[in-house]
Amino acid sequence: MQSLQQKASEWSGVSTSDAFAIDETNLFELLGLQTFVTLSTNFYNRVYDDDEEWFRSIFANSKKEDAIQNQYEFFVQRMGGPPLYSQRKGHPALIGRHRPFPVTHRAAERWLHHMQQALDSVPEIDADSKIKMMNFFRHTAFFLVTGDELKNQNQGVPCKHGANKPAAV
Amino acid sequence: MQSLQQKASEWSGVSTSDAFAIDETNLFELLGLQTFVTLSTNFYNRVYDDDEEWFRSIFANSKKEDAIQNQYEFFVQRMGGPPLYSQRKGHPALIGRHRPFPVTHRAAERWLHHMQQALDSVPEIDADSKIKMMNFFRHTAFFLVTGDELKNQNQGVPCKHGANKPAAV
Repeated sequence: MQSLQQKASEWSGVSTSDAFAIDETNLFELLGLQTFVTLSTNFYNRVYDDDEEWFRSIFANSKKEDAIQNQYEFFVQRMGGPPLYSQRKGHPALIGRHRPFPVTHRAAERWLHHMQQALDSVPEIDADSKIKMMNFFRHTAFFLVTGDELKNQNQGVPCKHGANKPAAV
Repeated sequence: MQSLQQKASEWSGVSTSDAFAIDETNLFELLGLQTFVTLSTNFYNRVYDDDEEWFRSIFANSKKEDAIQNQYEFFVQRMGGPPLYSQRKGHPALIGRHRPFPVTHRAAERWLHHMQQALDSVPEIDADSKIKMMNFFRHTAFFLVTGDELKNQNQGVPCKHGANKPAAV
């Protein structure tokens, strides 16, 4: 059986070593806190204003300010800065915490589309950092698609008479 | 609804801030790689040799050497050292990766029992580091119990005629 990270690499086209090239330099020291705050603010401004209702609706139960804070605190922690996320919320547990959301291939691509635009809108992020970050984001997005598929495995518990369809049927 | 980390704190008796006091000092620099290797080796020697068959059997499909390496690489990465785990395997994704295992309250307590013994068998670990590490381990163990319970929520998909019982029924 393929591991989570093997599937993530296959689907994203980004190897684990390229994805974690973010660890070769300290991106937090290079870019500073404000750059991460700006990036996440630009990203979620796009997401919450997305023309595609199916994608926007994934975030409908979260407050935009919370989504921004969760994201930049995780990025700061993961890219060499202080462990802001864990101090407030504990383990990132990316797969576990994305469990409520339908992280499909299509949703991953839409997320990445907005993130690419958000990165391009922050001039403080140099070209090399941008490539490293996009590789990390792309691998991570598809890692979460892999994680999302684990949920469906459980729903395959055999039900007779097609009774595991939604209750409305 | 309680968050994952709130439940973990309630069940473990360890607050998020006590659990992540491991970030106040760089435990990797203080203790060194070999100490972590020794700790994980002592831990899994106990686990794979446990008298309690129900607990030992949780690990039956993993090779002991792999379990040791996964564990010390994660500890090293999380406690201030190089990102050995992510370079090899990607995101820790603690809840997602523990999904195959039945992480019950009883299993968490047994894991912690062995970890306390393993910590006590490594003289290089000073008393203050030991307290910080045990708080982190205790909170994390119950964070994973919380994550394990999420699995069961999915199995509650309504099936008519009691048909979501195991196929043998």
